[in-house]
Amino acid sequence: MAIARGYAATDASKPLTPFTFERREPNADDVVISIQYCGVCHSDIHQARNEWGNSHYPMVPGHEIVGTVTAVGSSVTKFKIGDHVGVGCFVDSCVGCAARDLDNEQYLPGLVQTYNDFEADGETPTYGGYSDSIVVKEGYVLSIPDNLPLDAAAPLLCAGITLYSPLRHWNAGPGKKVAILGMGGLGHMGVKLAHAMGADVTVLSQSLSKKEDGLRLGADHYYATSDAETFKALAGTFDLIICTVSAEIDWNAYLNLLKVNGSMVLVGVPEHAVPVHAFSLVPGRRSLAGSMIGSIKETQEMLDFCGEHNIVSEIEKINISEINEAYERVLKSDVRYRFVIDIASLKA
Amino acid sequence: MAIARGYAATDASKPLTPFTFERREPNADDVVISIQYCGVCHSDIHQARNEWGNSHYPMVPGHEIVGTVTAVGSSVTKFKIGDHVGVGCFVDSCVGCAARDLDNEQYLPGLVQTYNDFEADGETPTYGGYSDSIVVKEGYVLSIPDNLPLDAAAPLLCAGITLYSPLRHWNAGPGKKVAILGMGGLGHMGVKLAHAMGADVTVLSQSLSKKEDGLRLGADHYYATSDAETFKALAGTFDLIICTVSAEIDWNAYLNLLKVNGSMVLVGVPEHAVPVHAFSLVPGRRSLAGSMIGSIKETQEMLDFCGEHNIVSEIEKINISEINEAYERVLKSDVRYRFVIDIASLKA
Repeated sequence: MAIARGYAATDASKPLTPFTFERREPNADDVVISIQYCGVCHSDIHQARNEWGNSHYPMVPGHEIVGTVTAVGSSVTKFKIGDHVGVGCFVDSCVGCAARDLDNEQYLPGLVQTYNDFEADGETPTYGGYSDSIVVKEGYVLSIPDNLPLDAAAPLLCAGITLYSPLRHWNAGPGKKVAILGMGGLGHMGVKLAHAMGADVTVLSQSLSKKEDGLRLGADHYYATSDAETFKALAGTFDLIICTVSAEIDWNAYLNLLKVNGSMVLVGVPEHAVPVHAFSLVPGRRSLAGSMIGSIKETQEMLDFCGEHNIVSEIEKINISEINEAYERVLKSDVRYRFVIDIASLKA
Repeated sequence: MAIARGYAATDASKPLTPFTFERREPNADDVVISIQYCGVCHSDIHQARNEWGNSHYPMVPGHEIVGTVTAVGSSVTKFKIGDHVGVGCFVDSCVGCAARDLDNEQYLPGLVQTYNDFEADGETPTYGGYSDSIVVKEGYVLSIPDNLPLDAAAPLLCAGITLYSPLRHWNAGPGKKVAILGMGGLGHMGVKLAHAMGADVTVLSQSLSKKEDGLRLGADHYYATSDAETFKALAGTFDLIICTVSAEIDWNAYLNLLKVNGSMVLVGVPEHAVPVHAFSLVPGRRSLAGSMIGSIKETQEMLDFCGEHNIVSEIEKINISEINEAYERVLKSDVRYRFVIDIASLKA
């Protein structure tokens, strides 16, 4: 066993505090990673505070992990010491199944989440990336392209794939009009990715306060959803709307912005149900769909795509001692556009 | 002008009564049809009673029309006197557009409905198939395959295409598990069509009262939705669910019966919005979509498919004088499975 240091939530109502724990000895198929950076995802807050009702404590959050390989098990072939690697939202999949489903593993039972979950043995808790090391099976470790800065690449592991997967699945590309609803940690990645895929990109944000950023990151158009004129001007415009907003907004108003055969895809999850009119779907063969992260195969494809197009997240780097303050700022949308913890601050 | 006889609603609260009116002289591209049968669609009732708030009176309902060609305009090439033909839900499309969109015309502005609408001139009311003749542009007339009985073929023009189009669009076929929700005028057509396409077909009906019929028409499985066990047994089962029910049921319960990547498609339209949980969509990349009739091109494809597979509707034939009683029975779901008016009863 190796000792790891990190920050943990010890119950739903307390701030995160320093926490020391053990990482397992690497098995033959394991990769040992010295963590350098970890992104801060809104779902870290939901889980640290038990807002989804399934939290286990102590909990070390973090699933936007990048670092350097420090050791590999005897059967590992894809990685060697010194490689820049990442770990995303899960560290095992299809547990108990006859075969791994490489395309849909993120949607299937038998997924082991990177933190707030239990390993395949059902007993050993998983601890995430707000820590200085992690041991992960080779099949769940991603290669980070050499040209990407490690700190700003961290959010690709969750925010990046969360947007990349639906953009690909619903064929964003040349000739397609894509709207990104919400200009935050997820949304700004959507703008960059959809632009790089060749789509015509529109940001739909509550106000125009981030318009300059949006256009700089690749948006072709930028509209305020607080302006009722937006919904008249854009009726029937989009092939695809990716909704990154987890507030309970009126989906019908956005479904009405879709072309015939268009799809609106939810990647944000509001707490309560939202009323949907069949008249928002039927008279235009429109779809309301959902999407959640991506498979390991698709996550690697996304990282390679980001390497080719020099895409990373816009980040604000913090020391790990600032994590509780960062959570408050995330809740106020006061970050442009993703906090990334410098894990060196933990080792210092 | 030719005199036509029919039945009309004269306002939202009165029963339908005999009505005499004029059909236009055929233009060069028109087909004149002696109507023999007309199906009774639930939407006839909605519109006769102004339940959608857009009714014009007097209204001659009916958009499941079959009959025989009695005259053709000088430029008509596809039809000749004596042909068996049909007319569905619309008699013109893409009015005011540069070109007709042969694949999506039913979803676009510029559609002229077969009744309760106005011709391309914006002034001449359209009157439907509860009448003895109709004059329709060649491009909106369908060929009825010779081997199909005309009376039972009538409901294909609306009920048939309403199910055929989403089954095709969402790839029902061999290896696919398809559920038809609701075993009525629409649902029973879905069972026949999905079975003929080679899908594994399940009926989800409130009770098992029509189970024998369902299995005889092609269903492989039949479940009662009043039994809570159904929702446990079938969780994660279907690639596609076609919802023909226009009551406000809990869509989330049905979305949960979809496989990963599955779609539920609404063809029935409840009056009010239905609450949808993002959690019903996101964790399985599921879709909730809508579909509405089909293009003329697809309607002809459907009729040809029905000809090849000997598919027609299960009908109960009525005289036109029984139409008001039939409406009451439709509202009580007391018909197996579609009323068809014998227009000879009007001519008698």
